[in-house]
Amino acid sequence: MDSVTRYDLPDSSRSVGFTKAGRMTVADRDNPFLTDSGVLLPHVEVEYETYGTLNNDKSNCILICHALSGDAHVAGWDACWEKENRPWRENRPGWWDNVVGPGKGIDTNRYFVICSNVLGGCYGTTGPASVNPDTGRPYGLSFPVVTVSDWVRVQKRLLELLGFSHIYAVVGGSLGGQQALEWALAYPQFMEKAVILASADKLSPQGLAFNTVGRHSIMSDPHFCDGNYYGKEKPDKGLAMARMLANITYLSEESFHDKFGREFQYTENPAYNFQIEYKVESYLNHQGLSFVHRFDANSYLYITKAMDYYDAAARWGSGNLEEALSRISADLLMVSFKTDWLYTPEQSLEIAKVLARLGKPVNYVLVDSRKGHDGFLLETEAVSRVLDAFLKKEDSDEPDEE
Amino acid sequence: MDSVTRYDLPDSSRSVGFTKAGRMTVADRDNPFLTDSGVLLPHVEVEYETYGTLNNDKSNCILICHALSGDAHVAGWDACWEKENRPWRENRPGWWDNVVGPGKGIDTNRYFVICSNVLGGCYGTTGPASVNPDTGRPYGLSFPVVTVSDWVRVQKRLLELLGFSHIYAVVGGSLGGQQALEWALAYPQFMEKAVILASADKLSPQGLAFNTVGRHSIMSDPHFCDGNYYGKEKPDKGLAMARMLANITYLSEESFHDKFGREFQYTENPAYNFQIEYKVESYLNHQGLSFVHRFDANSYLYITKAMDYYDAAARWGSGNLEEALSRISADLLMVSFKTDWLYTPEQSLEIAKVLARLGKPVNYVLVDSRKGHDGFLLETEAVSRVLDAFLKKEDSDEPDEE
Repeated sequence: MDSVTRYDLPDSSRSVGFTKAGRMTVADRDNPFLTDSGVLLPHVEVEYETYGTLNNDKSNCILICHALSGDAHVAGWDACWEKENRPWRENRPGWWDNVVGPGKGIDTNRYFVICSNVLGGCYGTTGPASVNPDTGRPYGLSFPVVTVSDWVRVQKRLLELLGFSHIYAVVGGSLGGQQALEWALAYPQFMEKAVILASADKLSPQGLAFNTVGRHSIMSDPHFCDGNYYGKEKPDKGLAMARMLANITYLSEESFHDKFGREFQYTENPAYNFQIEYKVESYLNHQGLSFVHRFDANSYLYITKAMDYYDAAARWGSGNLEEALSRISADLLMVSFKTDWLYTPEQSLEIAKVLARLGKPVNYVLVDSRKGHDGFLLETEAVSRVLDAFLKKEDSDEPDEE
Repeated sequence: MDSVTRYDLPDSSRSVGFTKAGRMTVADRDNPFLTDSGVLLPHVEVEYETYGTLNNDKSNCILICHALSGDAHVAGWDACWEKENRPWRENRPGWWDNVVGPGKGIDTNRYFVICSNVLGGCYGTTGPASVNPDTGRPYGLSFPVVTVSDWVRVQKRLLELLGFSHIYAVVGGSLGGQQALEWALAYPQFMEKAVILASADKLSPQGLAFNTVGRHSIMSDPHFCDGNYYGKEKPDKGLAMARMLANITYLSEESFHDKFGREFQYTENPAYNFQIEYKVESYLNHQGLSFVHRFDANSYLYITKAMDYYDAAARWGSGNLEEALSRISADLLMVSFKTDWLYTPEQSLEIAKVLARLGKPVNYVLVDSRKGHDGFLLETEAVSRVLDAFLKKEDSDEPDEE
């Protein structure tokens, strides 16, 4: 399943600044991609970006895995791919720009960084909005349900096509952290190090509940039409609702206090109506409205479902986490954030403890943050410091270029 | 504003078992009700129920205040009012039946209990579904926004019309607890004791966020029609979503684990589709579906808005909680639940600490519960024991009838 035909870098790849972006066909009719759900996809294209320069012995490659709403554009202010089709990217740097770049936590002067959009996503990789070659129409919900493991196997195809049989590290936060964990479990020899931030071996039942309501919101939107809304009015209201809701789980009680408190947005006194009134209402409303311009509702369904399904212990240890983690060879770093209640510090610590009990190399860092789950995106100074130290550790053969 | 004409008990009141139910007109054109939002309501009718027997010196009356989705029917299996119009009440006891009744925590052999539906509600008290006498049509969103203080002033009119100038205690949980607190602040001499369970002097910014998304869901439903949906298709999907979401906040991470874990409802293996799959999905879906049969979406908007607005310190202390609480004369009992994250134990404890600092009589109980905010409804044994002891305390003049 993972043996793939090698392709040349597509002509369509292009470079802007320190970023290079491209699309790679990783599955075709001769070499289709089999999903966990048992469907053969006859064509899978992957959008990816690279940063920095690959060294001569190809030993400095780091794969970054993005979270729910992320894309391949990790760093830099230059939108590299289809800028014209993604106007929301204007004046927005990559989603981890404070952490990834020249001289930053993941130093692109030192490492060659790759990030690709997930299967089922809406940022250039094949997904529900893609045209099904068998029908000539967008897949919609006929696209197979995908899993974190599917994502990792697609990423492996991409890396192999780019000429890698081994990489230095895989790094991801949140749902990206689950991909990093899955990488370390599925292909233990493929990387030296793995960094898992604000993540866990599985989503909690409360997390399942939030995703349930989010999907319910999208699928209840009258414009959803069983996922066949392409070219028609989109289920924007449902998607906005799902995003507003999810945003609550990305913040913490503390960050709600710090950012908004109970303050009104416009006036000092109650308006006594049902318009937007509190700052927090205004914030959430903006989050919802802006999201629908940049995300596909079907992809939201697929990605949250993958998030729900992921269970490392079930997949690799018949339900036993220790048995699953015993597969790991990579040096692991778990980074958690004190007020994260979506993927709690306790969940990260549990993985670290089990690995330690197994005698595996593992580091655990708890970032003392008030920013909740979003800490992995916002606590860039702490995250950069920790990443930099961990990635350089036992890496002292190379001359320090700083 | 609070002087009211006395009415006779309406002919429509009737008795079933130990419960008596009635409707009382507490405002009419001669004596309208002025809301905090500055609107004069020309007609306010209140649905209420009573339990037990009033003693000769009228000193054993306890007012219970209900929470968001509650009604006047606190206890007993007998639906007293318009049974025919509320079929969902069949086979459901009152919402606090394990706590209120003969020999129970609030012992109706000892106390005369009253509970009434809040202004703006949908269980018999005037609200957005009521006919506006000026137009002959349902109010919808032309009903004034109401506040917790409005509710308390309506309840005071009811109590005065029933002949009370003083009661023994006021008791409430959650939003009902905020009514109990408001009672103790607005009319400090009106009661001996006040019990506030799973509540706080104000809702947290995170709580505001959840209410925001819930209301957004209702108002985004295409059947909402600016609240003018009476007699037409209702915004059921939006209301169901709001309820599903709110239900997450009523449970705790622990109770999600205890009740559902990550188990599937029907199968052992993933179905790889977007149907209901996890037990928690099934539970939330049921909560949403069943709620729309028994609740009015407009009332949901009004009640959550009142919940948002309530701020005891702002109302009674120019933002200073200590100044506000210095008004209180009643002996206060704060009951909080360890895993409640909607109204946290810390918030209850803060009230208790301030009262203690002021030299006021106050008791604080932390129930060691895994059931989250719903603990005030579910931890009936602990709640009953605590209520029984607190209500009997310094009540030893009366002969013990047990």
